[in-house]
Amino acid sequence: MARSAVPPSVTELIEALSELPGIGPKTASRLAFYLLRGKSELALRLSEKLQSLVERTRFCSICHNVTEEDPCPICSDPSRQQGLVCVVEEPMDLLSLERTEQYKGVYHVLHGALAPLEGIFAEDLRIAELETRIRNGGIQEVILATNPTSEGDYTAAYLVQRLRPLV
Amino acid sequence: MARSAVPPSVTELIEALSELPGIGPKTASRLAFYLLRGKSELALRLSEKLQSLVERTRFCSICHNVTEEDPCPICSDPSRQQGLVCVVEEPMDLLSLERTEQYKGVYHVLHGALAPLEGIFAEDLRIAELETRIRNGGIQEVILATNPTSEGDYTAAYLVQRLRPLV
Repeated sequence: MARSAVPPSVTELIEALSELPGIGPKTASRLAFYLLRGKSELALRLSEKLQSLVERTRFCSICHNVTEEDPCPICSDPSRQQGLVCVVEEPMDLLSLERTEQYKGVYHVLHGALAPLEGIFAEDLRIAELETRIRNGGIQEVILATNPTSEGDYTAAYLVQRLRPLV
Repeated sequence: MARSAVPPSVTELIEALSELPGIGPKTASRLAFYLLRGKSELALRLSEKLQSLVERTRFCSICHNVTEEDPCPICSDPSRQQGLVCVVEEPMDLLSLERTEQYKGVYHVLHGALAPLEGIFAEDLRIAELETRIRNGGIQEVILATNPTSEGDYTAAYLVQRLRPLV
């Protein structure tokens, strides 16, 4: 009976919102009903922004950060030290570092950390791409800025072993 | 500098997500980067669901609950007592009551509660529509199920005054 109280377009939105991290079914319902109430302006705007996220963003072919232009603004910025590469796990980690406005080098985004128990191995990350960047020359220094977690530490240790012969 | 680290399609999504209740800029960033990572499947699905929410839902012309058909499945259900009307503030309150599977009457959704200090007056709610429903006849009983807040209690007291001469 409760099913007929809420139309499918609402329950389907609640289900999709529940797939977001940290959003349970209760929060998802609250959000969906808020969007319903809001005369649809925010719902439509969110819908458009999600679509342009998918359509307009890609990953930089050099550093693998999220970008709308390839290479990304950081990799194509002549005022940044292109020979200094900071390795991070996710685009969000890069953003945190950029917010400090202290770092003048470039980045390499791995898109994760090694977690063999969860099935995330070296070939699932952008490690081969980092190796190629180094082999191609022009890189003087690599800073490992993986997260201070066991996976992050393990990834950093692995990278030291793998990259040392190259730098 | 931090601006160039994240493309506009990502910052605009973060801004739109931050307008949702209980979602601050930090959670919004986390959600946006999660959607980026997810190979766009969830982002596209969410985008579609938001659009169909706007396109397919409307409010029932009788009870003002959210629905895809007008009248809604509850108002057009001959097995429900159409003469028993439960007045609630929001569609979500109706859903909570339906989940109990105990109530066999119909509803009237006010779309808010009176809050004169916040500029929400009787004419902003579906109170005149409730009055018309009662005047049109066929309603034997009205249950006031506004929320147990000062606004909800005030709204219930106001409705008692306004509807008593009619029922």
